[in-house]
Amino acid sequence: MIYSFNNDYSEGAHPRILQAMMEANLEQNPGYGTDSHSAHARELIRREIRREDADVHFIPGGTQTNLLAVSGALRPHQAVICAETGHINVHETGAIEATGHKVLSCPTPDGILTPEQLQRVLAHHTDEHMVQPKMVYISDATEVGTIYTKAALEELSRFCRLHGLYLFLDGARLGSALASRANDLTLADIAELTDLFYIGGTKNGALFGEALVLLHPDLKQDFRFLIKQRGAMMAKGWLTGIQFEELFQNSLFLDMASHANEMADLLRRALSDRGIPLRWESPANQIFPVLPDETAAALAEDFLFSVQEKPDQSHTCIRLVTSWATKPEGVEAFAAALRRLA
Amino acid sequence: MIYSFNNDYSEGAHPRILQAMMEANLEQNPGYGTDSHSAHARELIRREIRREDADVHFIPGGTQTNLLAVSGALRPHQAVICAETGHINVHETGAIEATGHKVLSCPTPDGILTPEQLQRVLAHHTDEHMVQPKMVYISDATEVGTIYTKAALEELSRFCRLHGLYLFLDGARLGSALASRANDLTLADIAELTDLFYIGGTKNGALFGEALVLLHPDLKQDFRFLIKQRGAMMAKGWLTGIQFEELFQNSLFLDMASHANEMADLLRRALSDRGIPLRWESPANQIFPVLPDETAAALAEDFLFSVQEKPDQSHTCIRLVTSWATKPEGVEAFAAALRRLA
Amino acid sequence: MIYSFNNDYSEGAHPRILQAMMEANLEQNPGYGTDSHSAHARELIRREIRREDADVHFIPGGTQTNLLAVSGALRPHQAVICAETGHINVHETGAIEATGHKVLSCPTPDGILTPEQLQRVLAHHTDEHMVQPKMVYISDATEVGTIYTKAALEELSRFCRLHGLYLFLDGARLGSALASRANDLTLADIAELTDLFYIGGTKNGALFGEALVLLHPDLKQDFRFLIKQRGAMMAKGWLTGIQFEELFQNSLFLDMASHANEMADLLRRALSDRGIPLRWESPANQIFPVLPDETAAALAEDFLFSVQEKPDQSHTCIRLVTSWATKPEGVEAFAAALRRLA
Amino acid sequence: MIYSFNNDYSEGAHPRILQAMMEANLEQNPGYGTDSHSAHARELIRREIRREDADVHFIPGGTQTNLLAVSGALRPHQAVICAETGHINVHETGAIEATGHKVLSCPTPDGILTPEQLQRVLAHHTDEHMVQPKMVYISDATEVGTIYTKAALEELSRFCRLHGLYLFLDGARLGSALASRANDLTLADIAELTDLFYIGGTKNGALFGEALVLLHPDLKQDFRFLIKQRGAMMAKGWLTGIQFEELFQNSLFLDMASHANEMADLLRRALSDRGIPLRWESPANQIFPVLPDETAAALAEDFLFSVQEKPDQSHTCIRLVTSWATKPEGVEAFAAALRRLA
Repeated sequence: MIYSFNNDYSEGAHPRILQAMMEANLEQNPGYGTDSHSAHARELIRREIRREDADVHFIPGGTQTNLLAVSGALRPHQAVICAETGHINVHETGAIEATGHKVLSCPTPDGILTPEQLQRVLAHHTDEHMVQPKMVYISDATEVGTIYTKAALEELSRFCRLHGLYLFLDGARLGSALASRANDLTLADIAELTDLFYIGGTKNGALFGEALVLLHPDLKQDFRFLIKQRGAMMAKGWLTGIQFEELFQNSLFLDMASHANEMADLLRRALSDRGIPLRWESPANQIFPVLPDETAAALAEDFLFSVQEKPDQSHTCIRLVTSWATKPEGVEAFAAALRRLA
Repeated sequence: MIYSFNNDYSEGAHPRILQAMMEANLEQNPGYGTDSHSAHARELIRREIRREDADVHFIPGGTQTNLLAVSGALRPHQAVICAETGHINVHETGAIEATGHKVLSCPTPDGILTPEQLQRVLAHHTDEHMVQPKMVYISDATEVGTIYTKAALEELSRFCRLHGLYLFLDGARLGSALASRANDLTLADIAELTDLFYIGGTKNGALFGEALVLLHPDLKQDFRFLIKQRGAMMAKGWLTGIQFEELFQNSLFLDMASHANEMADLLRRALSDRGIPLRWESPANQIFPVLPDETAAALAEDFLFSVQEKPDQSHTCIRLVTSWATKPEGVEAFAAALRRLA
Repeated sequence: MIYSFNNDYSEGAHPRILQAMMEANLEQNPGYGTDSHSAHARELIRREIRREDADVHFIPGGTQTNLLAVSGALRPHQAVICAETGHINVHETGAIEATGHKVLSCPTPDGILTPEQLQRVLAHHTDEHMVQPKMVYISDATEVGTIYTKAALEELSRFCRLHGLYLFLDGARLGSALASRANDLTLADIAELTDLFYIGGTKNGALFGEALVLLHPDLKQDFRFLIKQRGAMMAKGWLTGIQFEELFQNSLFLDMASHANEMADLLRRALSDRGIPLRWESPANQIFPVLPDETAAALAEDFLFSVQEKPDQSHTCIRLVTSWATKPEGVEAFAAALRRLA
Repeated sequence: MIYSFNNDYSEGAHPRILQAMMEANLEQNPGYGTDSHSAHARELIRREIRREDADVHFIPGGTQTNLLAVSGALRPHQAVICAETGHINVHETGAIEATGHKVLSCPTPDGILTPEQLQRVLAHHTDEHMVQPKMVYISDATEVGTIYTKAALEELSRFCRLHGLYLFLDGARLGSALASRANDLTLADIAELTDLFYIGGTKNGALFGEALVLLHPDLKQDFRFLIKQRGAMMAKGWLTGIQFEELFQNSLFLDMASHANEMADLLRRALSDRGIPLRWESPANQIFPVLPDETAAALAEDFLFSVQEKPDQSHTCIRLVTSWATKPEGVEAFAAALRRLA
């Protein structure tokens, strides 16, 4: 039997979430997110982030959330800066550009943006013959599994405010970042330091759904029009409301992320035991071991994972992802295979 | 207690659909619609429409499906023709225009497009100073509850093919149209007569999801790129696959629509018994009675429905919608209220 | 020899304009409109409209000016209202929609928009499922040759300000409107009553070029970025600067329009002498006589003009346009032909 | 007196071009490029490139031409590859992205694209989660003054055809490239090896105007609709027609470029005499000397030029551009200043 570490959205939803959806199934609810479940979930999130003034919108998926966040904030000539590895830059089929905006990408060693990199972009964009950088996109955890420290985010936030740049944090894997032992940020910190961010449900135990949090007052106006126009306003909007109620009315959101991280820790230990190097220091639920090609090939017979890159002729860097649903048996089988192969 | 006839998406999903989702919850499935449930559901639909060559894509919602269908088919200077009442013309916040295309709308008495109306549009669009009409958008059932006969659709299809126009049928309420006693079309007929169409799940007992069927070969290429770009490719794509498996592996799709129509029949009878006129001949699950203002106001105390228009100073045309989940008790309560008030 | 009344851009430019371009030909000028001719022309226009705070941008053509004016002012979900006959609605190949915005068109008897028509549009656009009307587009003279009175424009302006709508006046034929005997508006009035407007050069004796005047402060920011992005920033920007210097440093702009109107007056008299009715009361440089088909056909042997519409089986409504370059001999030949034919 | 080497569009047009425009000034011509001058100019170009099947469109400016070429050829999910220094990537304010398409940029040492660089981009774009590369944009001369050899263009063309990529050559400075002593390409070669390209007028002695040549049959359909939609169809279209008639009915196009190159040769010799290194081997009309900061500053007192980059703390790389109108006295003055300063 093949076990998958391919991603953190291979299974459905946490049983408690499904249970809540079942229980509400025959309620008659008003559509488009105007229901009481969504209102309650918004309230829970506002409380969690300690910002009663925040606007919270539930969006079915991450690409939609990103394109709404960017296109809702920018005028036609404005651009968003991100790391070269940023999801919007490489893995959304040009969704941002399809709304008319350039993505300005910066090479980074580890997927983390710094003020120095931003400064370089600003220095190159000086007049009306070039796009005008107006937003900074970061992800936490990043696409290579790294996470922002509080100090790093504060520094970035200061730079952005000084230069009139909106700071947007893509939190598709925010649960895993926050639950990481290396993390010193809270949701309230993130709400303090960014202008908008989203809390990912899809990759952390919901069937689907992301909670987009708008903090900067300029970004809030008419946002529901934008959601509708991009086809991101679900008819049965309470479905996301119910899921985020479950995630935030108790500690389910962090509990599931902690499980994912524990499973990742076990994998990291197994890799480290065999002396296998990791491509990036990634303390959350993604791991990037660099394996001899034949080891990678042998593992692929029993496990699903993706290939990240080929660092040299004889090695393969693979990506292992754990989730709320990852089974200890699956991890143990992988560790056993490693002991056999590496 | 208030009972809602506000729309056909006030409740969740048919219990069998939820059950199937529960059962598959801990399976590990590949993402983005590449799973076996989606493959099976596609196969069931291809069989039902008798077109093994059709491409079937599952899209979370109707606005996304419409904007993908239109923007995927048109070059930048091309436009889509629809009835003035067409959903894409009035109720999608300019989603089509946001992809760059003009919607050319025709006034119609009943939401049904005819070759004569199309001919008038073509006659006005003669050179490169005007957009080039290239697609015709119809909905069945229409936004005012009417449905296409086979003869009407054949005539329209002939006209479109003669003039090189793609014919796109929005089937958000296709279940109810097909289950209507006034209907003589089959899904196979629709696949024969259109270039692309969609089978609506959201308004017929699914949690969400529409099955977009691409028939014309020119429309198929690279469609998954377009889906991804617009944020309409669900990570957990099997969720729509499972729902359409349930809808089409037995007669659930039509059974639910038949229930909705039966409930509508009961409402129609109750209205007719009190001599209340209907604004349109709508033989499916939407009814548009024209009521004295005070009757409408009195009904609104116990029932939810939307106001369609004000035909004159003292009357209100309201919209009643039934669904797979509409309860006979709700209908009976409404009939009783009518007997009391009208 | 065939004489053309086909439009007001059949000839090049007034000789004084060409002369000025010749004289400046070997100057070394900075590019993109940052030259002294453009600065001077801007100053002349600001003085003429009595608004030292206005931003003036020179754009090569009308479609570009319109799409910049609209897309520069609107957020993605916002729409522009115009008359059904509005140039942006019918004769710009969907240029506005290509920037993502819906054009909401109103039927009018005469191409003139009124507050009543706007009120009807506003009443229909009530929530986030529909686009949000945010701009009103009018043209003076209109596409059917009619013009706005001061009272009509004041009323419209009041309505727009009350409802937070930007008022944009397309002045492709503003010269002819202002020079009309039926006109009681000045450029300063227009600057007072609108939020942005443009003064057309192409149709009034320039080789090309329109002067877009931005009055509302919200519309001014970063406008040069938008111009560049749409490809509307000429490398040799002084070419439009020089032309508008000539148009406005003496009365050339109105003188040329007056000539066009006088030629139109002669045509109107000749038509009236033969009892030929006009489709619209058009007191500027466009005339829309309704002719028996055979008269129209016979005239077409010696004169160029366009066909506007077929009011009935045996009549044709044609469009005659005069310009700064229309020759009295051409008009006289047309009058003679009318005497012969009608 | 200050002399400008800032660009090749500081002066108006060659006197013969102005003369031809004067002579045609009072002709009555049909609009939008349907006139006989444009037809004749198209014919001259077709003959020059030896492709009777080519479609030739005259567009007022370069940014418009580029955005039309790219957006006219690509479907929504497709992208264009270019050098990091490519004009569309850095100096058109995101004009391509504003039409919805991603620009995929490659670092290059010299602005020249090679099959190896393209191969790397293709290798990274493997599925529907990423944009689909479909066009390659090159410029000749490039933005850093380098030019393509016939061998290099043949190799690129072969690669593009093999991989189904359209090859588009931006010829804003094609005249100077073709007139360079280092060049071995002809216009006919370029027509043979690319799918579309443009011949720049603005930077080679026309008032404005670029001739876009469409070769691949798939790119031709309905192109006039696209031109109109983007506001690039001039009312007085014969103005570009006349200019290209002059450019191509005798050798004016190459003669002017040769003059520009000769002036550049004189500058290069003066720089070389003082031992000043050049940043790139640029054999056409752009030169990039690397000067000590104080020399650059001193020269800036008498000459206009732009700063390209700061290679180190004490040097400045400037850009000198010559044109059809550059005066030998200006060049001599610059050489004298160099002798004095360097």
